[in-house]
Amino acid sequence: MIVVLRPSASPSEVEAVVQRVRLEGFQPQAAHDGDRHVLIFSCPDRSQRLRVLGQIRAMPGVESATEPARPYEVVAPHYEGQRREVSIGEIGCGGREFTVIAGPCSIESEESLALTISQLATLGVKAVRAGAYKPSTSPYGFQGLRKRGLEILRSVAREFGVATVTEVLDVRDVPLVGEYADCLQIGARNMQNFELLKEVGRQAKPVILKRGPGAKVDEWLLAAEYIATEGNLDILLCERGIRTFESGTRNTLDLAGAALARLLTQLPVLADPSHSTGRRDLVGAMSVAAVGAGLDGLLIEVHAEPSHSEKDGAQTLSLEEFETLIRPLKAVAEGVGRSLDSLHPTSAAATS
Amino acid sequence: MIVVLRPSASPSEVEAVVQRVRLEGFQPQAAHDGDRHVLIFSCPDRSQRLRVLGQIRAMPGVESATEPARPYEVVAPHYEGQRREVSIGEIGCGGREFTVIAGPCSIESEESLALTISQLATLGVKAVRAGAYKPSTSPYGFQGLRKRGLEILRSVAREFGVATVTEVLDVRDVPLVGEYADCLQIGARNMQNFELLKEVGRQAKPVILKRGPGAKVDEWLLAAEYIATEGNLDILLCERGIRTFESGTRNTLDLAGAALARLLTQLPVLADPSHSTGRRDLVGAMSVAAVGAGLDGLLIEVHAEPSHSEKDGAQTLSLEEFETLIRPLKAVAEGVGRSLDSLHPTSAAATS
Amino acid sequence: MIVVLRPSASPSEVEAVVQRVRLEGFQPQAAHDGDRHVLIFSCPDRSQRLRVLGQIRAMPGVESATEPARPYEVVAPHYEGQRREVSIGEIGCGGREFTVIAGPCSIESEESLALTISQLATLGVKAVRAGAYKPSTSPYGFQGLRKRGLEILRSVAREFGVATVTEVLDVRDVPLVGEYADCLQIGARNMQNFELLKEVGRQAKPVILKRGPGAKVDEWLLAAEYIATEGNLDILLCERGIRTFESGTRNTLDLAGAALARLLTQLPVLADPSHSTGRRDLVGAMSVAAVGAGLDGLLIEVHAEPSHSEKDGAQTLSLEEFETLIRPLKAVAEGVGRSLDSLHPTSAAATS
Amino acid sequence: MIVVLRPSASPSEVEAVVQRVRLEGFQPQAAHDGDRHVLIFSCPDRSQRLRVLGQIRAMPGVESATEPARPYEVVAPHYEGQRREVSIGEIGCGGREFTVIAGPCSIESEESLALTISQLATLGVKAVRAGAYKPSTSPYGFQGLRKRGLEILRSVAREFGVATVTEVLDVRDVPLVGEYADCLQIGARNMQNFELLKEVGRQAKPVILKRGPGAKVDEWLLAAEYIATEGNLDILLCERGIRTFESGTRNTLDLAGAALARLLTQLPVLADPSHSTGRRDLVGAMSVAAVGAGLDGLLIEVHAEPSHSEKDGAQTLSLEEFETLIRPLKAVAEGVGRSLDSLHPTSAAATS
Repeated sequence: MIVVLRPSASPSEVEAVVQRVRLEGFQPQAAHDGDRHVLIFSCPDRSQRLRVLGQIRAMPGVESATEPARPYEVVAPHYEGQRREVSIGEIGCGGREFTVIAGPCSIESEESLALTISQLATLGVKAVRAGAYKPSTSPYGFQGLRKRGLEILRSVAREFGVATVTEVLDVRDVPLVGEYADCLQIGARNMQNFELLKEVGRQAKPVILKRGPGAKVDEWLLAAEYIATEGNLDILLCERGIRTFESGTRNTLDLAGAALARLLTQLPVLADPSHSTGRRDLVGAMSVAAVGAGLDGLLIEVHAEPSHSEKDGAQTLSLEEFETLIRPLKAVAEGVGRSLDSLHPTSAAATS
Repeated sequence: MIVVLRPSASPSEVEAVVQRVRLEGFQPQAAHDGDRHVLIFSCPDRSQRLRVLGQIRAMPGVESATEPARPYEVVAPHYEGQRREVSIGEIGCGGREFTVIAGPCSIESEESLALTISQLATLGVKAVRAGAYKPSTSPYGFQGLRKRGLEILRSVAREFGVATVTEVLDVRDVPLVGEYADCLQIGARNMQNFELLKEVGRQAKPVILKRGPGAKVDEWLLAAEYIATEGNLDILLCERGIRTFESGTRNTLDLAGAALARLLTQLPVLADPSHSTGRRDLVGAMSVAAVGAGLDGLLIEVHAEPSHSEKDGAQTLSLEEFETLIRPLKAVAEGVGRSLDSLHPTSAAATS
Repeated sequence: MIVVLRPSASPSEVEAVVQRVRLEGFQPQAAHDGDRHVLIFSCPDRSQRLRVLGQIRAMPGVESATEPARPYEVVAPHYEGQRREVSIGEIGCGGREFTVIAGPCSIESEESLALTISQLATLGVKAVRAGAYKPSTSPYGFQGLRKRGLEILRSVAREFGVATVTEVLDVRDVPLVGEYADCLQIGARNMQNFELLKEVGRQAKPVILKRGPGAKVDEWLLAAEYIATEGNLDILLCERGIRTFESGTRNTLDLAGAALARLLTQLPVLADPSHSTGRRDLVGAMSVAAVGAGLDGLLIEVHAEPSHSEKDGAQTLSLEEFETLIRPLKAVAEGVGRSLDSLHPTSAAATS
Repeated sequence: MIVVLRPSASPSEVEAVVQRVRLEGFQPQAAHDGDRHVLIFSCPDRSQRLRVLGQIRAMPGVESATEPARPYEVVAPHYEGQRREVSIGEIGCGGREFTVIAGPCSIESEESLALTISQLATLGVKAVRAGAYKPSTSPYGFQGLRKRGLEILRSVAREFGVATVTEVLDVRDVPLVGEYADCLQIGARNMQNFELLKEVGRQAKPVILKRGPGAKVDEWLLAAEYIATEGNLDILLCERGIRTFESGTRNTLDLAGAALARLLTQLPVLADPSHSTGRRDLVGAMSVAAVGAGLDGLLIEVHAEPSHSEKDGAQTLSLEEFETLIRPLKAVAEGVGRSLDSLHPTSAAATS
């Protein structure tokens, strides 16, 4: 909401408006437009907004009080159809080329990671994902190799010339992770860890923001707005399934919600078909569906030896399974006016 | 579960097993295999099944007690990869050709229906949907033109040579609706109206079974099994969105659940992108996503004059919007090894 | 919405308003207030309602168009604080006395039912529940003893002087079930089986309407409105758990939703702690919580031999477990200004 | 899972078992029991656990491999019926006395807080809640007075002799907040901020752990286990509503889930009737229901001037509304064998 005070407004009139806004639960940002005081704040609740708008317009000294189109102004398109292209290392995401980010769930060892990444690179994958810091529902679960994992990731990625995405869990680790990786990931469970959002908003690397399993699209976009208002608009949204009563899949992949997020923002939107379904036999279908839905990319789990995967083996594709996906992904991307030029199957089986 | 009794089993031994099964809450179907009594019943709860299996195997006179692979045996594939093709009028569904069933939500008048259907037929649509009996959340809502609507539907469909799908709400209307339409639809709110399921299972027309908004995939397939066990295996499943906390869309289209239903059965699976999203601006993306997900067809709302639609105008495509969808649908269908030969845009704008 | 036309309105003006309402998807009920035509219809969608209201007010011949407070006008309180007391046999429900309806899930045999009911009657239970027609998720599940079950229920209930509640599944069975039972029950899966709702609305017995597991409170109340608009306002609402992601309980008992239904209607509201939790170890706590929440009664599963129960044994209380509940239920009822005078523990253990 | 190796096990046999465990995705904690190596790790997935158990038992050098009863061993009761009493300042929680923690959502000013707390103290409230650091869905929302808020809270609480609960959002603020408050609160959005859980687990103040709106009971208890395994078992669980499709209330208060958490742990369990319902007209009914459900306390929003509340006014009780709750709370507490001796209405109206 933008409140403009008249040049003739007295200090006490200005102060009264500021107090009114604070009473409603908001901290206005103050600015000046020539002689005029300007107060900026956002009120997400529609009925409150309409009431406040009316009250403030009636206060002495107020020239105008106007309502923004949406509660997330920075990440929304600033003009009709604006799409932001975000670079991860040298890879652009959000443009014509569909982006495939693949890799194992966790970094387990240098040998294992190199084995997977070398083969992904051969297939044309330009950006890889792998976790050094692992959120685990149980305190007894595997928590990742941490700093040693970051070192392995950077070393292997440099060897094979790929960009890297890895998760950060702790505000105190942001500088370190930013030093080692090309793109930071905020996991689903931290989507409303606002301190962490602000911290990644203050550094210069792109951020993949996963949707929380219990978060509405609006809340997801407001979480992105937290990052953006700190100055970092290099955000990629990633839908990874929401919590529902359906138990045949781990979560419910909300492709319509992801497509809606793409309508409401200028940001690229990815889908994670692995964590959302939790079933290897559905990952392929959901990957192709995500391209059909007009999304900008995939974050997908692939492991050279899925049965040895430290975590989540049930949903991890083998390299062979991943390779057979390339042809339909390319065909469907072209069918919806996108391209997927980087990937190319190498084996005879996959191309036949 | 299939229990086979020994040829030497005494009548009282047989009776004891029957009583045991009934005590568990099941009504066994009795059959004979030569000299052997065979009892068939299904126990969906896994832990109960394991317990009962063990107890029955230990009873005198029992030769074997074996567990079926799944609680829905009739609709499950009977051999690896079996896919059933179901005919609606002369249209096959579930084979290579992707099926598009389009039309208005309700039958409003002969003129209005003819206007929409004539244009759909020109675009190549071979099967249309329109409601004569309308379920309405409120008793004050529009309930449909009922028998007069059926007459209009048949008359218009014959004129333009298309097959028809329409909903039946009441067990007592099944014969009448079956007389007028080529395919019956069971709406989401009646998915567990078991008497209605049995009734449509006893007649000879194909049935589209919509998933209930609060139903798990397993329950949906068991509802199909109700129809199938009455003798009618011409069932098309249709995913139309489940109830979740997300309020940006009317329901959450569960494409992964639909793809899972396709893995677990031999039946064709459709998606309804209109009722699931409730938003015209997402219908196109979700239609294309459904093709990408490997589903067999769409049930989609199209109206010559959406703003005059009796119901659900917010989600209804105009004919122009529908026509622009044809090209990406065809391209993506080919990308996943399917075809969509029947449809063809007619206007220059849609093909450019 | 109530539209009043001027006495001077011409027939074509009246007809134009009627057509306008039908175009919006509603079938207006016509009435007369002296010289004035009155049209009544309900539009649940708020934004549509506001638009239509404005448009109709601008039409020639219209005197007023007013918005009802709520979409469910018949079941809503007609004056502040109105509470309806509904009788099941000779038992009143919705007044000061808290109502406990107990009994087995299914009628299994005359002996078994008599055993349970005789003991419940000894404890002071005045109304019993037991199913003759059983909805079963699987077609292979137990479907109830049907007409024979009704006969057993009536015979046993008469012997012990208790009122009876039993479920009806099929519109064609309504007269028969109404002949045998004191109160009909509409199960959760039939909450939006509108034909069944209308049918029970046309007969003279009270109806317990269970909330569907995927139904919002608003939809539940509109389902009640379906019964009420047919002329039967003897409705008892029953919350039995909604579908959520939580899997530690079978469903999620929504006591706040039940309390909300009690605020929005004049009808008694019951809770079913058995089906909602699916766990015997939570039934007691949720029963007492329901009294604390201000609800009007319980529908609770009790069986003389729970381990022999045909269905749902995991949630069924034994008579001993039920008896130990009586003291806290009575104490809490008094704590919230209600009474539970009818029930009285008989054994020393339960009263110590 | 606890694996005990034989005294005779060779180093390479021990190493092989360690490697096996790590391959499954777990980091075993090593301990010694005399001559025996002991490995401790937890595997939450049941089917994996059974498989691993079998495999490890078959390895050379292994004496035994046993399965814990539950994945949350520290917070679970260590003997049948164990209940932990946790002290907040001088107030015990989890014993016979039911605990009521009340106060405003946010600390707004010293005057405003003193006004509310002085009156709560007069009614007998011994512990108050108020937020200095406020999580806000929108970056434009009120974020709290932060350190200044902590100072106000401590100063006012000392004046009126009450204990304090306040939220901590950032790992870096834990020492500061712990210095000022008697009990730390982890908000629903941070329930799986594992770094924050560990940090509050390493300090000496009790912690209220709110359930995440998208979290299963199991995940909630594992989050508590994170705190407990760092050494702090002074944890109070607080149910505050889960995300469901129901929109008549803000969230769905899951009292059965809360009662289940109380069965599965030794920890006190509170309910928050304010955030869960989001409606002042349901807060009273849900407060009394929580006592009836056997929970240990309430976390409830009360403000001397609710209409001036910075946040969430729609759900905040006035002091008068709070006071009228005292009588039914006391009566129901006694009805379920608890007491609420500390609270006492002061005004004639509330006691009449």
